[in-house]
Amino acid sequence: MHINEFDLIRQYFDQPGLADAADSIALGIGDDCALLRPIAGHVAAITTDTLVAGRHFSADTPAHAIGWKSLAVSLSDLAAIGATPQAFLLALTLPEFNASWLADFAAGLHALSNETSIHLIGGDTTRGPLTINITAIGQVPEMQALRRAGAKPGDFVCVTGALGDAALALRLTKPPLSLADDLSDASSFALYESLQKRLDYPTPRLAEGIRLRGIASAAIDLSDGLAGDLRHILDASNVGVEINVDDLPMSPAFEWFHDHRQRLQLQASGGDDYELCVCIPPQRLAEAQAAVGHLLKPVGRITARTGLRWLDHNGAVLNVELKGYDHFRS
Amino acid sequence: MHINEFDLIRQYFDQPGLADAADSIALGIGDDCALLRPIAGHVAAITTDTLVAGRHFSADTPAHAIGWKSLAVSLSDLAAIGATPQAFLLALTLPEFNASWLADFAAGLHALSNETSIHLIGGDTTRGPLTINITAIGQVPEMQALRRAGAKPGDFVCVTGALGDAALALRLTKPPLSLADDLSDASSFALYESLQKRLDYPTPRLAEGIRLRGIASAAIDLSDGLAGDLRHILDASNVGVEINVDDLPMSPAFEWFHDHRQRLQLQASGGDDYELCVCIPPQRLAEAQAAVGHLLKPVGRITARTGLRWLDHNGAVLNVELKGYDHFRS
Repeated sequence: MHINEFDLIRQYFDQPGLADAADSIALGIGDDCALLRPIAGHVAAITTDTLVAGRHFSADTPAHAIGWKSLAVSLSDLAAIGATPQAFLLALTLPEFNASWLADFAAGLHALSNETSIHLIGGDTTRGPLTINITAIGQVPEMQALRRAGAKPGDFVCVTGALGDAALALRLTKPPLSLADDLSDASSFALYESLQKRLDYPTPRLAEGIRLRGIASAAIDLSDGLAGDLRHILDASNVGVEINVDDLPMSPAFEWFHDHRQRLQLQASGGDDYELCVCIPPQRLAEAQAAVGHLLKPVGRITARTGLRWLDHNGAVLNVELKGYDHFRS
Repeated sequence: MHINEFDLIRQYFDQPGLADAADSIALGIGDDCALLRPIAGHVAAITTDTLVAGRHFSADTPAHAIGWKSLAVSLSDLAAIGATPQAFLLALTLPEFNASWLADFAAGLHALSNETSIHLIGGDTTRGPLTINITAIGQVPEMQALRRAGAKPGDFVCVTGALGDAALALRLTKPPLSLADDLSDASSFALYESLQKRLDYPTPRLAEGIRLRGIASAAIDLSDGLAGDLRHILDASNVGVEINVDDLPMSPAFEWFHDHRQRLQLQASGGDDYELCVCIPPQRLAEAQAAVGHLLKPVGRITARTGLRWLDHNGAVLNVELKGYDHFRS
């Protein structure tokens, strides 16, 4: 860590007493390193994610939402492996010192860190193009960690909530859709806002990941869209999958606003869902549903035949080629 | 982690078999999180640092050197707390896909990771302005960690090597100095190259940090210059210091090239040294010197009176105000 950046972090991000309250944090913000105590019977789960302005969020996204989402993205990775959040580091690159932006960003960040009991233990601040990197650390019993490898033919493929909301929110901000007509009444506007909230304030499915420890055979979080992310499970597990497109869960707002010709594209390829996609052996489906509740919806089955197939309501294979969001195609 | 970025990381950064060889790594690159096993009797030391193009390195710095230095900066933080390197994550933001740049960068990174037995266990790759973030994790017995707090009046202040080389290398690349005259013979050129190497390929003092566990009363690594970094020890320990400016170690190349009027500025305020600055109780100085060897040089003493004072060879206080490098002053 560097001089003054350190004061910066202290001023806006340190919450006195919070880290001290956690037994597992031996040393928090303010030294060359933070020190974390191990938790008996657990391994540390670690993930890092970078959000770049103009790429992962638009220039007009409120700082509060950027703070929330920056942490949510990393927490979603902890959720996907079934880990309990412990601590995180924030590496912030800022074009300028802007006190009000920093205060809003920190408020958004802390809203989620408080909700999920994760402690900021260190970071780095530098000047440059707006970029936010968060490294999150969680704890999970090694044998119960939810990996990408482990899916078996016959397993149910389930997701933890509605898909496509964030992608639709992005689509709706673009012409030529005439939103004014659609939003003329209060209930429509509330629905539209709920979509925007799903884009700006995703909910990492931490409780669901923890409840599925030792039950799910494989898991991943949906950041780049079901089509792209599911392929990682297929590759790691050396299996295939059939997804029933009509079973992909839609939120009320999605049902209201979407163009049905774009449904599959939005739900399978749009990205930014931050739901979990998990594989559940058939004999454990009832147990998984009891553990997670109504959020958990089966959408397909793992197959021995490799590849990803989309089925219509008659079980016929759709002739579509869907890809996940690729950060290197522009 | 995201689609394709993941393939990117695999292709250029994964060294098959290396991570598998480490018992403490339960799961390396290729899932939502990496999994690290705790080491009995140790706590995890964690640090994150970002390097931004045009700020922490110039546009013409070779990719190999950027790879080395990106890791060295974080390893230097592990050294400062006395930790043994275990694993690191790389979050890479690239303006374009450039295979030859990536290969050189990865080669520089791996040259240092192999030398220090630290394993790449995960990361993130996004498109954007060139920015490199590394989070490094090490292990240290909790009670032996070298913190910034702990310096006591009477302690010797020591550094692990010569100061000012990197700052002088930066200075020499700028006009109006006519380097052509100075570099006309082979030995001068070798000296000049050694300065440049200190800027581009800093050596994190890991072995020295580990040997000083339980001996040093306080420690920090010198990234922003002695003046700025030492202040962190003073603030954390609530003490002051007197530094004998004539005792600040110079390398042969520094002695040869420096303008003596700029000596203190370069050695105390230039930054990028990546040496350790440690405080040693008087009764343990001989032990510390035996542990670390000739690299360890006393340069001053901790005082009860707060503040940082620079003394000349007569012990008189110099009337200078030195600051460390501040990433937020441009």
